[in-house]
Amino acid sequence: MPRLEYWYEFASTYSYVSTMRIGALAGAAGVEIVWRPFLLGPIFAAQGWTNSPFNLYPAKGRYMWRDMERLCADERLPLKRPAKFPQNTLLAARTALTLAQPERAAFSRAAFHAEFADGADLADPAVVNALIGGLGLDIPMVTARAGSPDIKAALKTQTDQAATLGIFGSPSFVAADGELFWGNDRLEQALQWARRG
Amino acid sequence: MPRLEYWYEFASTYSYVSTMRIGALAGAAGVEIVWRPFLLGPIFAAQGWTNSPFNLYPAKGRYMWRDMERLCADERLPLKRPAKFPQNTLLAARTALTLAQPERAAFSRAAFHAEFADGADLADPAVVNALIGGLGLDIPMVTARAGSPDIKAALKTQTDQAATLGIFGSPSFVAADGELFWGNDRLEQALQWARRG
Repeated sequence: MPRLEYWYEFASTYSYVSTMRIGALAGAAGVEIVWRPFLLGPIFAAQGWTNSPFNLYPAKGRYMWRDMERLCADERLPLKRPAKFPQNTLLAARTALTLAQPERAAFSRAAFHAEFADGADLADPAVVNALIGGLGLDIPMVTARAGSPDIKAALKTQTDQAATLGIFGSPSFVAADGELFWGNDRLEQALQWARRG
Repeated sequence: MPRLEYWYEFASTYSYVSTMRIGALAGAAGVEIVWRPFLLGPIFAAQGWTNSPFNLYPAKGRYMWRDMERLCADERLPLKRPAKFPQNTLLAARTALTLAQPERAAFSRAAFHAEFADGADLADPAVVNALIGGLGLDIPMVTARAGSPDIKAALKTQTDQAATLGIFGSPSFVAADGELFWGNDRLEQALQWARRG
């Protein structure tokens, strides 16, 4: 089965939409998705941004939230703007990395839903613990692994690899031949590319 | 007939694609397009950019050109990357503003084609004159009007108005109720919005 890597930052609004769409679309296309969470912060910092571009550039930020409202209405996805944006997603990304693919996808969907449908803060360990518990996983075990040096190193490697692949935003999709697609708007095109091989 | 304002900067790559697509799509949707050229430079400068973000952020720039290749292949549009990017489009924007709507659309299509299909430089008066002549218009008369204080002021007003509307990039589409859509990817959605009233 052809594969497509799905690269996402938990703080990204448009990644909420693609996270909720990718399962059904990939299933219909016969493409296996490899879920690869990373941190956008270090990539933004390397180009001089210490905040989300949606906060740095207010006109762009106002537009993004309105665009998200229209997009979520079209996709019948609930949207609640979190009090804090962007969120510190270190804990969520590390937690996702402790999980094997099927659980990682389920955790990621639950985390994005908590953040953008319920307005919860993923930086709050209680929120993340509730997500882990909701998936029937062992909270102390997952939490311990998420804080381990191995997982910290794995997330750093993951983020370095994102930069090496040319990734500069989230969501991004990378096909087996290295072809890069950026943005929820390119999900269908990326799946089609992956399917063609 | 419902109307949709089409705001575009002649230096913008994605506006090449939307310029070539908008006529047929608007016709099919029964929406009248009002062509409104403006300058993105002053809007970028106001947020601290003295160059295209595609040059300021190289990973984003590399991606954009690859994305354009894929997009133009899908749309069966020729693409030749101009030697200079972004181009100085002051002359092209002023020239477009001298023309009434039907000629303005025709000039704009010809200008984007020259820039991104042939790789020509719109800052070159000979290139712009050839476009004017190609439309059967009077070159000295159009050129004189393009350099007049009235047209210079009109372009400044147009650009100020773009900023007031919340425009921060090109192409943008503004419906009669002020709803803003940004990007070639949002053209269909903008037309649908305009049609619904």
